[in-house]
Amino acid sequence: MPQPDHVSALPIGDPARLDDDLKAVYAKCVEKLGFVPNVLQAYSLRPQKLRNFIAMYNELMLGPSGLSKLEREMVAVVVSAANRCYYCLVAHGQAVRKLSGDPELGEMMVMNYRVAKLDRRQRAMLDFAWTLTTTPHEIGDAHRAGLREVGLAAEDIFDLAETVAFFNLSNRMAYGLDMMPNRDYHRLDR
Amino acid sequence: MPQPDHVSALPIGDPARLDDDLKAVYAKCVEKLGFVPNVLQAYSLRPQKLRNFIAMYNELMLGPSGLSKLEREMVAVVVSAANRCYYCLVAHGQAVRKLSGDPELGEMMVMNYRVAKLDRRQRAMLDFAWTLTTTPHEIGDAHRAGLREVGLAAEDIFDLAETVAFFNLSNRMAYGLDMMPNRDYHRLDR
Amino acid sequence: MPQPDHVSALPIGDPARLDDDLKAVYAKCVEKLGFVPNVLQAYSLRPQKLRNFIAMYNELMLGPSGLSKLEREMVAVVVSAANRCYYCLVAHGQAVRKLSGDPELGEMMVMNYRVAKLDRRQRAMLDFAWTLTTTPHEIGDAHRAGLREVGLAAEDIFDLAETVAFFNLSNRMAYGLDMMPNRDYHRLDR
Amino acid sequence: MPQPDHVSALPIGDPARLDDDLKAVYAKCVEKLGFVPNVLQAYSLRPQKLRNFIAMYNELMLGPSGLSKLEREMVAVVVSAANRCYYCLVAHGQAVRKLSGDPELGEMMVMNYRVAKLDRRQRAMLDFAWTLTTTPHEIGDAHRAGLREVGLAAEDIFDLAETVAFFNLSNRMAYGLDMMPNRDYHRLDR
Amino acid sequence: MPQPDHVSALPIGDPARLDDDLKAVYAKCVEKLGFVPNVLQAYSLRPQKLRNFIAMYNELMLGPSGLSKLEREMVAVVVSAANRCYYCLVAHGQAVRKLSGDPELGEMMVMNYRVAKLDRRQRAMLDFAWTLTTTPHEIGDAHRAGLREVGLAAEDIFDLAETVAFFNLSNRMAYGLDMMPNRDYHRLDR
Amino acid sequence: MPQPDHVSALPIGDPARLDDDLKAVYAKCVEKLGFVPNVLQAYSLRPQKLRNFIAMYNELMLGPSGLSKLEREMVAVVVSAANRCYYCLVAHGQAVRKLSGDPELGEMMVMNYRVAKLDRRQRAMLDFAWTLTTTPHEIGDAHRAGLREVGLAAEDIFDLAETVAFFNLSNRMAYGLDMMPNRDYHRLDR
Repeated sequence: MPQPDHVSALPIGDPARLDDDLKAVYAKCVEKLGFVPNVLQAYSLRPQKLRNFIAMYNELMLGPSGLSKLEREMVAVVVSAANRCYYCLVAHGQAVRKLSGDPELGEMMVMNYRVAKLDRRQRAMLDFAWTLTTTPHEIGDAHRAGLREVGLAAEDIFDLAETVAFFNLSNRMAYGLDMMPNRDYHRLDR
Repeated sequence: MPQPDHVSALPIGDPARLDDDLKAVYAKCVEKLGFVPNVLQAYSLRPQKLRNFIAMYNELMLGPSGLSKLEREMVAVVVSAANRCYYCLVAHGQAVRKLSGDPELGEMMVMNYRVAKLDRRQRAMLDFAWTLTTTPHEIGDAHRAGLREVGLAAEDIFDLAETVAFFNLSNRMAYGLDMMPNRDYHRLDR
Repeated sequence: MPQPDHVSALPIGDPARLDDDLKAVYAKCVEKLGFVPNVLQAYSLRPQKLRNFIAMYNELMLGPSGLSKLEREMVAVVVSAANRCYYCLVAHGQAVRKLSGDPELGEMMVMNYRVAKLDRRQRAMLDFAWTLTTTPHEIGDAHRAGLREVGLAAEDIFDLAETVAFFNLSNRMAYGLDMMPNRDYHRLDR
Repeated sequence: MPQPDHVSALPIGDPARLDDDLKAVYAKCVEKLGFVPNVLQAYSLRPQKLRNFIAMYNELMLGPSGLSKLEREMVAVVVSAANRCYYCLVAHGQAVRKLSGDPELGEMMVMNYRVAKLDRRQRAMLDFAWTLTTTPHEIGDAHRAGLREVGLAAEDIFDLAETVAFFNLSNRMAYGLDMMPNRDYHRLDR
Repeated sequence: MPQPDHVSALPIGDPARLDDDLKAVYAKCVEKLGFVPNVLQAYSLRPQKLRNFIAMYNELMLGPSGLSKLEREMVAVVVSAANRCYYCLVAHGQAVRKLSGDPELGEMMVMNYRVAKLDRRQRAMLDFAWTLTTTPHEIGDAHRAGLREVGLAAEDIFDLAETVAFFNLSNRMAYGLDMMPNRDYHRLDR
Repeated sequence: MPQPDHVSALPIGDPARLDDDLKAVYAKCVEKLGFVPNVLQAYSLRPQKLRNFIAMYNELMLGPSGLSKLEREMVAVVVSAANRCYYCLVAHGQAVRKLSGDPELGEMMVMNYRVAKLDRRQRAMLDFAWTLTTTPHEIGDAHRAGLREVGLAAEDIFDLAETVAFFNLSNRMAYGLDMMPNRDYHRLDR
């Protein structure tokens, strides 16, 4: 498959010269996914920052939480849709397709999450994600009360807020560096 | 001094039950600042996330970079002004006052950075921060070329983008949890 | 395949009672596509309006024009992305995939057309589509001059403007009636 | 009366060379209005598209509907006010003055429909028109339920949505081609 | 002629109990215009504020200035169009019609000033008025330089800025109090 | 203390040539504040306009009203925060600090008034100020009813609206002329 024009608008680190712990991360990606996600390659220009990014990402998206992994990915896509971030929509849209086994759900998250038939809990989470992304000053106690009402514990609200916050970070890294996603995502889990 | 009404809208971790590494962070804060920043207390509800947040923050704001610490703080305040984030404006506005020795500069960053008489490099950095925060889809090659023209190396552009991105994260954590800053900041470095 | 929850929030016409010309349209759709697009079913509540819609659509998207059919579909998707219209993104995103043979191009049009590597002519057309959709009062002589410069004749500019205008109509019909697209589109041409 | 500087930024068709059916339309306009509306002249660059536009327009604005002709014109003006479309405000503002016999009502529709003392049905229709024009993603079941509550049947909601949608089309044709309205409208029905 | 439903959402002062200087203003209005503008009646709830408003208004709109009275009225209408202020559009739209003898010019200022064929000086003034009203933070030295280039002296720029500023005040008074204009304006100078 | 780079982008009047009444105003400012506020110096380019500005300002901010002086200053700062007006935030932020004796309250008004713990009356006033500034067309009877409910008399609503309106004027004068505030404000009342 032809590779994309670029990984990042900035130079990327030479994989052969990375520290061993980062080489191990790359190797694990190739083993599990078949490729190294371009975001890691783009971040490798600044290895310590790459290390911190991976640590935060893994805890956030893969660590223990009252939010399911699918819910976290749905939030990731809705935030990225609000910001129209190509990289994250491609990569996390695929994750929603894979974790849900429902390609339409992935498309809905990308295009307009409001058309999806969701339970009240998930709808409330995604509305919160949209508002905290686009007009954060509108978030108030009523929103947190609404989340509690549909069953979120304090830790869940924390995890939801951090997921929204993190993708507002990563969307802006993708725009700031013009990161392009690996083409491999497109055909997966259709 | 009376303490603020709350640190966070969510419960916070009991300082006495934190792991030793986090206790050490708290102790160091008290030693250096005289208090534990409320953002750390708010994050302590989720200790591993607190650890990751601290690691990313320290590398970003205190680690080696072509951007001076003052420049990073100026970016932090301009992002937080765009998002009207009270917590970060209070905490990082103080940092600008302290690092610059110029209280007016701090006020300008908080209120409207465009009135400040800055050199072209700093003005370009802050314009980039504003645009990447408020309308990230407008960022393109021309903006990165503009940054190179005023002397930023690739690593500097990376660090600038990550600073903007990080405060878009932390502003949303502050809104999502309704974090209030320690009152101690207000009177410092006026 | 299970059918979507609804075609439209309003009742739809009984296919068995449609006039013969409209029955013929339905039959032709089944023959060519395998299904009747839900937009036609939704419009069948008002048969004369359906007739007019089909006539305008067919001339616009399939009739003779200096814009290729793929270009017209790309414009359709970019307008629908600006308006976040699920129906039109699903249906015309598939058309871009099919006509271009390039599924990634379809995704780029849906998610953020600015990341696509396009020639100047197509980029100018899509920029015009975005601006005429989102901030029409900004369109002026300079935009039309820019289109002429990349080779558009007067008739091409007309056709481009009408394509943009038409999908601003159809996006609002989809929102106004809560039209849902046929599920068949999702798996086609991946 | 001196004629406007231009009808359209693009060339217009030679009236003498139009097909007979279009010549008949022009003749009927002159008979009824005293002039050929510039929108038709502008569209005559693409005669088949002109034909389709006329068919859709006539059914929409003059055909049978649960919405009165005045109500349809009021919607046309409110949509055009949201988009600040000079052509449509001039032409349909006159239509509101004529059909209502109330020049102030025409002005209110042009300037700010919210100041008009309308019954609940008309106010709900115009609020729907404004929202579907400016923030279509906010339209949901509650809006349609609100329209039913003030007496609109399913067909009426369809006709309302299509009127809003159509003027979002025609406003963008006017902007895209820089159409100027016939000066004749200005003094009529004051 | 029937009077409007209300002058203001708040009570208005009793004309018979006004101080003599304000009675004289009312009398002069009746003599010159045939009626007392509703804005004065609305302001009479607070007589000293009415006095100050009249003084500022008269100097601004009728006093000596490098801007013609027509130009000041054009600015008034463009600001009021940006804010969609019914009261000021009605009252000052009429003033533009009267001072210019060109009813179409009045309509253009109300509906979309960009369609008017103006000289560079007037176009620059109106662009400045639009930007200072809608996105004041974008005004910079380049805008003032642009005004000087088309012939405005420092005093003219001052007067232009104050006209824009004043109608941003009066538009908000009209909204804040729900002031309705005298119906008499509608038929004048058509 | 070093003086700011400029008072205004336009020339200012020579203090020695001002009329006696304006000289007296300047003298009183020096007596009471220790300096002449730059807004007065900037306005002195047009002495009669300066006179009218002072008259309106003094009545509004210092005259009898159901709104306390602190409340009027809080409104001034919230309007200026919405418009991001450096001059007015500096000058009136200091006034809030002084009148309230609470520097944090001043910061909250500047940065994000929604974080302040206010009684219902003050919160309603500031919400009204924000809405009338940023989206005046949304103000309706419900907002005025809300103000009456928290105890505002008709005259108080008038005064509130005029305070909001006036700072929308003065913010635009500051932007239009690029007025810079006296540096003296920064250190006062911290």
